[in-house]
Amino acid sequence: MNSLKDRAAAIAAEAARLGKPVYKEGGSKDTTFRAELEKVSPKVVTLEEAIRKTGLKDGMTISFHHHFRGGDKVINMVVAKLAEMGFKNLTLASSSLAGVHSPLIEYIKQGVITGISTSGMRDALADAISHGLMEKPVEFRSHGGRGSAIMNGDIHIDVAFLGAPSCDPLGNAAGYSRSENAKSICGSLGYAIPDAHYADKVVILTDDLVDYPNTPCAISEHDVDYVVVVDSVGDSSKISAGAIRDSKSPRDILIAQTAAKVIENSGYFRDGFSMQTGTGGASLQVVKYLRQGMIDRGIKASYALGGITAHMVKLHEEGLIGKLIDVQSFDKVAAESLKNDPLGHKEVAAYEYASADEPGSATHYLDIVVLSALEVDVNFNVNVLVGSDGVIRGAIGGHPDTAADSALSVIVCPLLRGRIPCVVDEVTTLITPGNTVDVVVTDFGVAVNPRRPELAEKLKAAGLNVVDIHDLRNRAFGIAGTPEPLKFGNKVVGIVYNREGSVQDVIYNVVD
Amino acid sequence: MNSLKDRAAAIAAEAARLGKPVYKEGGSKDTTFRAELEKVSPKVVTLEEAIRKTGLKDGMTISFHHHFRGGDKVINMVVAKLAEMGFKNLTLASSSLAGVHSPLIEYIKQGVITGISTSGMRDALADAISHGLMEKPVEFRSHGGRGSAIMNGDIHIDVAFLGAPSCDPLGNAAGYSRSENAKSICGSLGYAIPDAHYADKVVILTDDLVDYPNTPCAISEHDVDYVVVVDSVGDSSKISAGAIRDSKSPRDILIAQTAAKVIENSGYFRDGFSMQTGTGGASLQVVKYLRQGMIDRGIKASYALGGITAHMVKLHEEGLIGKLIDVQSFDKVAAESLKNDPLGHKEVAAYEYASADEPGSATHYLDIVVLSALEVDVNFNVNVLVGSDGVIRGAIGGHPDTAADSALSVIVCPLLRGRIPCVVDEVTTLITPGNTVDVVVTDFGVAVNPRRPELAEKLKAAGLNVVDIHDLRNRAFGIAGTPEPLKFGNKVVGIVYNREGSVQDVIYNVVD
Repeated sequence: MNSLKDRAAAIAAEAARLGKPVYKEGGSKDTTFRAELEKVSPKVVTLEEAIRKTGLKDGMTISFHHHFRGGDKVINMVVAKLAEMGFKNLTLASSSLAGVHSPLIEYIKQGVITGISTSGMRDALADAISHGLMEKPVEFRSHGGRGSAIMNGDIHIDVAFLGAPSCDPLGNAAGYSRSENAKSICGSLGYAIPDAHYADKVVILTDDLVDYPNTPCAISEHDVDYVVVVDSVGDSSKISAGAIRDSKSPRDILIAQTAAKVIENSGYFRDGFSMQTGTGGASLQVVKYLRQGMIDRGIKASYALGGITAHMVKLHEEGLIGKLIDVQSFDKVAAESLKNDPLGHKEVAAYEYASADEPGSATHYLDIVVLSALEVDVNFNVNVLVGSDGVIRGAIGGHPDTAADSALSVIVCPLLRGRIPCVVDEVTTLITPGNTVDVVVTDFGVAVNPRRPELAEKLKAAGLNVVDIHDLRNRAFGIAGTPEPLKFGNKVVGIVYNREGSVQDVIYNVVD
Repeated sequence: MNSLKDRAAAIAAEAARLGKPVYKEGGSKDTTFRAELEKVSPKVVTLEEAIRKTGLKDGMTISFHHHFRGGDKVINMVVAKLAEMGFKNLTLASSSLAGVHSPLIEYIKQGVITGISTSGMRDALADAISHGLMEKPVEFRSHGGRGSAIMNGDIHIDVAFLGAPSCDPLGNAAGYSRSENAKSICGSLGYAIPDAHYADKVVILTDDLVDYPNTPCAISEHDVDYVVVVDSVGDSSKISAGAIRDSKSPRDILIAQTAAKVIENSGYFRDGFSMQTGTGGASLQVVKYLRQGMIDRGIKASYALGGITAHMVKLHEEGLIGKLIDVQSFDKVAAESLKNDPLGHKEVAAYEYASADEPGSATHYLDIVVLSALEVDVNFNVNVLVGSDGVIRGAIGGHPDTAADSALSVIVCPLLRGRIPCVVDEVTTLITPGNTVDVVVTDFGVAVNPRRPELAEKLKAAGLNVVDIHDLRNRAFGIAGTPEPLKFGNKVVGIVYNREGSVQDVIYNVVD
């Protein structure tokens, strides 16, 4: 039998044994009506307050996503504020950068940003960096590689600034909004989810603060520290701009139709197959041309992965594609589908999409991928990052991830762009290694990697114009002449990481 | 201008600077058709293989969830296998335990299980532990407290074994299945999500291995290491057994109706209010009686939290409750609603539900909670874990979390259970501190915490029978006699943690 005194002593003894404090009764509770309390959530602050509260310091790493592509308004806004507040020597780790981010040039010159990690960049910023703007080389990673790097600490994010078309006062954020005040939509927030999970501090910027609970959501309040309301996080009309457009070019249509024939005769066009198409005019359209083949043969795809497009949504709605797995919505139709079809359209994080060290990532189970190229070389290596003039003008994206993990990777590429050969002796920059590339489809024939002789046989048997890749190179050089070697300087302006974390290539500065 | 030799040297130099390896081209890729590959996912193994591959060792901590309540089949199955494999000295950290887990008694005697962390326990296991079965005291935490403890490392889970009614070969798991082979349903997997996120290794046990991608899912493949297919993870008919039942007792109905009147006159019954009801006959039914009041006054709830029940689903479907926030589905209707209503019915993890140190957790924004009690004392302290005979017979659940965080906590409790007074001088075990309890509703009147005089005034004005809590105690003792002091031994068999991690009470062994 125990007295109250015994009990108090036992509590103290157990607490000491466990190294824990003894409970002490608190004061009175907060009795505010919650609908009022919610509006004054301690997480909702101004951008400047959020920056201060995160404890951001000079030399740290900040991160962003690129789901608004050319319409992004978050990166410029946040970096301008950081510059105004006097920050220096920050590393900017964005899932990618677009033409709209040319204001970064000034902030690099001022020393606000001294390091960049990204999948790619374009236009003025890319040009300036190619010409040697930064001291430290830019680090380029694939989307899957970035997911891995964030997981394993190669990229340590101190503060993530993530734009979201809706967020409630507690931090539940989505790439769309169901409220009547919706201002923007980008669909999947897949490239922002790793940042939200692994960053030390997470700030959501939103242009639609919605009622709690914002559901379904891509990012949970569990991962969010602060919520900042801004006028606009992005211009949704531009999510399908940049590299994503539906080409009307007869050449692109020819290449897309040929790629569809390659797929249909590859042996992988079977019931239950899975597929992905990358950015670029011809690539995106392949799905359209596969549709009739699927109907004719009575086969359905288990899922389409990507990079989800309106074409894929259409086939999904027709029952020809089982599920859509969406790390990034490539147009507004796809973004709306993600919003309205939660059972059929799955939002995935970068590492659920394409990371090499994630055994369950979707690319491991991908049958067919169709990808663009700036250059392919005679060893089937592909470059999608640096132009043949040596200037950075693209993005790695999921290119090497999907090529490596798929059963069949098909590169679509014109033989020439203007007077520039796209099939060359050696790619300017190595992005996707040739051992992962199976077929190259051009407007002058289809080349099959010698590692896949069985595939070449199938395509020949189907009447496709299968040619040696050296013949494509010779034909291109015959038309346009042998290109002059590029004049590079001696400064390394970019490092290309393999998706598994090794250093795969370097990019030198260009000399005009 | 750079030669190829320069480029290789630069790659080596940059790799050395960055401490990274230089990329080396790999071999040929896997060209298997993926629908076949998926079926041989390296994650799908037998239970014994999974246990071996996780690296589980004697002395480690294993965890489980209790979403199947009395129908759970996972804990007994896994612990039997661990015993067979010769493991010793394991700590079992389950979100809760039920009567079905009495086989654990044998495994405790054999030294397989030597530590337990749980929200509660019942029947034979609880009786044996109350009588001193274990050397180490059982650690009891609230659901929110467990979420915090897992986040801050107080509970470090080496291997989580989580049952799921559906899972794909890559590990995407849900508390329901959309396949034709569905065998079970439990709805929300909210108590399993912290384990999945924070455990070193995660094993999903499923009785329905579905096609990839299983979407939507509660647990992502990102968090899952192994998938084990078993005959059954649980008997869904028992998820509403145990503490959850819809009482037909006239006394429970009277108490529920009185609680509804208390709420309607509390000042918190306003448009946009939020609410939760705990387990127990009277508590669950309060929603039913609030319905008419909501219609009459033209008010709607913003959300209901819990512990979602068929009553709440009905009001949600009628438009009277905006959203359902579900950490645990209390019956099959609720589980089916979670499956079929992804936009309106939100699944939340324990820490998104009720953790004190999680600023966004739902309980912080809860207006009204109705909770049961085994005992209430004259200081408004509540006990829901230990019977008045000193034997453990319940679970903490979210009781102290919701009482502390809500604006209005209403305890529903009969004055007597048989000949046992429920209003006492001091609770046998302190679970929910009196400073967080606002109103006690009994079948003999309503007591209001003196900390809330404004509330007492409102209820009196509404004609409710507001009494001093000492009068309730006196009335109970008058009918049943003053209880004899309990005879405890000197062995501490249980420790009750406060939700913030301090030691709040101890439970001694009982002496018959």
